[in-house]
Amino acid sequence: MRKNSGLQGVYSPVVTPFDATLEPDSWLFVRHCRWLVEQGVGLAVFGTNSEANSMSVGEKIDLLDALLDAGIPAARLLPGTGCCALPDSVRLTHHAVNHGTPAVLMLPPFFYKNVSDDGLFANYAELIQRVADDRLRIYLYHIPQVSQVGFSLSLIERLLAAYPQTIAGVKDSSGDWDNTQAMITEFAADGFSVFAGSEPFLLQTMRAGGAGCITATGNVNPAAIVRLHQSWQDEDADMQQSALNAVRGIFQEFPMIPALKAAIAHYGASPDWVRVRPPLTALSQTQQHSLVERLAAHGFSMPGL
Amino acid sequence: MRKNSGLQGVYSPVVTPFDATLEPDSWLFVRHCRWLVEQGVGLAVFGTNSEANSMSVGEKIDLLDALLDAGIPAARLLPGTGCCALPDSVRLTHHAVNHGTPAVLMLPPFFYKNVSDDGLFANYAELIQRVADDRLRIYLYHIPQVSQVGFSLSLIERLLAAYPQTIAGVKDSSGDWDNTQAMITEFAADGFSVFAGSEPFLLQTMRAGGAGCITATGNVNPAAIVRLHQSWQDEDADMQQSALNAVRGIFQEFPMIPALKAAIAHYGASPDWVRVRPPLTALSQTQQHSLVERLAAHGFSMPGL
Repeated sequence: MRKNSGLQGVYSPVVTPFDATLEPDSWLFVRHCRWLVEQGVGLAVFGTNSEANSMSVGEKIDLLDALLDAGIPAARLLPGTGCCALPDSVRLTHHAVNHGTPAVLMLPPFFYKNVSDDGLFANYAELIQRVADDRLRIYLYHIPQVSQVGFSLSLIERLLAAYPQTIAGVKDSSGDWDNTQAMITEFAADGFSVFAGSEPFLLQTMRAGGAGCITATGNVNPAAIVRLHQSWQDEDADMQQSALNAVRGIFQEFPMIPALKAAIAHYGASPDWVRVRPPLTALSQTQQHSLVERLAAHGFSMPGL
Repeated sequence: MRKNSGLQGVYSPVVTPFDATLEPDSWLFVRHCRWLVEQGVGLAVFGTNSEANSMSVGEKIDLLDALLDAGIPAARLLPGTGCCALPDSVRLTHHAVNHGTPAVLMLPPFFYKNVSDDGLFANYAELIQRVADDRLRIYLYHIPQVSQVGFSLSLIERLLAAYPQTIAGVKDSSGDWDNTQAMITEFAADGFSVFAGSEPFLLQTMRAGGAGCITATGNVNPAAIVRLHQSWQDEDADMQQSALNAVRGIFQEFPMIPALKAAIAHYGASPDWVRVRPPLTALSQTQQHSLVERLAAHGFSMPGL
């Protein structure tokens, strides 16, 4: 039973640029998204690395509209639409589906901790009923180290049993390979697409029968990650994976979100990109120099940015 | 340097009723708030126990307007206005200040974990600048076991130094008495009001020089908690405290939010009150019966509800 969204490939949780007054800068956003699409990655806008939860629902709707108005194909979008409050999730999901995005990526409601699977199931049941659109395809976003609320295998099983056409897959950002493998083993045969949460797990994920990855560093190293996704059965796949890990390792020496933005600012000659919204903080000048030096020494570049 | 909000007393984080379609029921909400004000407690609407983060900003604004339209005095309101996204916090805070509430109670942005004090400071600095109203008084809401992001003593010190008129106090829901005591010792002499996060700490808080408490069970046992606040220097204060703890202990045998609602549903003969929004779940029929039996055996009642 392959769902007709059946997403595959590499997605970038697109970082969000802010102007001097900390408002989203839709012009820079569109430009970055256009570059990402040219590099072959899909656009998981409004993810953790997008500072999605630092934006209002209205700001996210405006940014989505800006992308579509600029001609970015809806088919390449996988917007994050899961909020704490059900009406916010419904509003954003409804807007995305109505504008032709093939699927959405949904955090669980993340304020209350130690909530039951019954409560999380009810959240999705209510959302699906309110959005009331057969085109809706939901990818579950499992990132327990940040949201502190996650998707157990038994909850996924229950959601799939109740909504086999709607529950389309998962992004597993737990960093726990045993969990990713279990999700693939249990559910992939039913057409459930399992995405790794970062590219260090990409080769393992493809070999196990997963769909690809949705990864922060897709913002800065997209083409190389896409190449491994397309050629994972080639002889040089392990070498490719090592090369990807080396680049990611440099970014991981810094706080990830401001580091991604500092790299885009540098390689795109666009200093506005360094800004983040509170409670995050931008890299210091020293950290920015250090990041750029490390990347340069590695021979890293972002061609065409 | 006493701030001119200088709140004292007992506040209830008012539970929010939902109708059969899970929409906020403003009629029941007004009725409960009116009863609470008659019992002598202030209204910390939109707190954790209010399922505030399960509601959109628009829904909270509508409920606040419903209270004011119904003649609930703005002076008795301490609305929760801290959201993950700065523009949401600004919008809700601005609305509250503009409608005459003497202060707001603010969660930190709670999606990202392990954020720096610099980032949290920047969040409040930006908010204060955007709200741009001398009347703004902020109570910091410290509940690290739920929000996972809290206020260190050094962050409070820094906020007080920068915004001595605006940063008016704290609700410490950590359950860590040493922390509450340290907040009082460090800052109360400057007119910073420290509220305990629940009434089991009320007597200790008053004896140490704190301002009162903001407590879930203020929804169901308000008059007795207010009485202790008013008579904490009386001889029977320890006995009063024990009696309060016994009632709270019964509620703590159940999940707190649905238990509060089940009690209001029972004593107010208003079954709609039992509903919660996902991801929370209502008490089962068995749990409801068990709660009511335990309360009845204890001689508990909610007169005038």
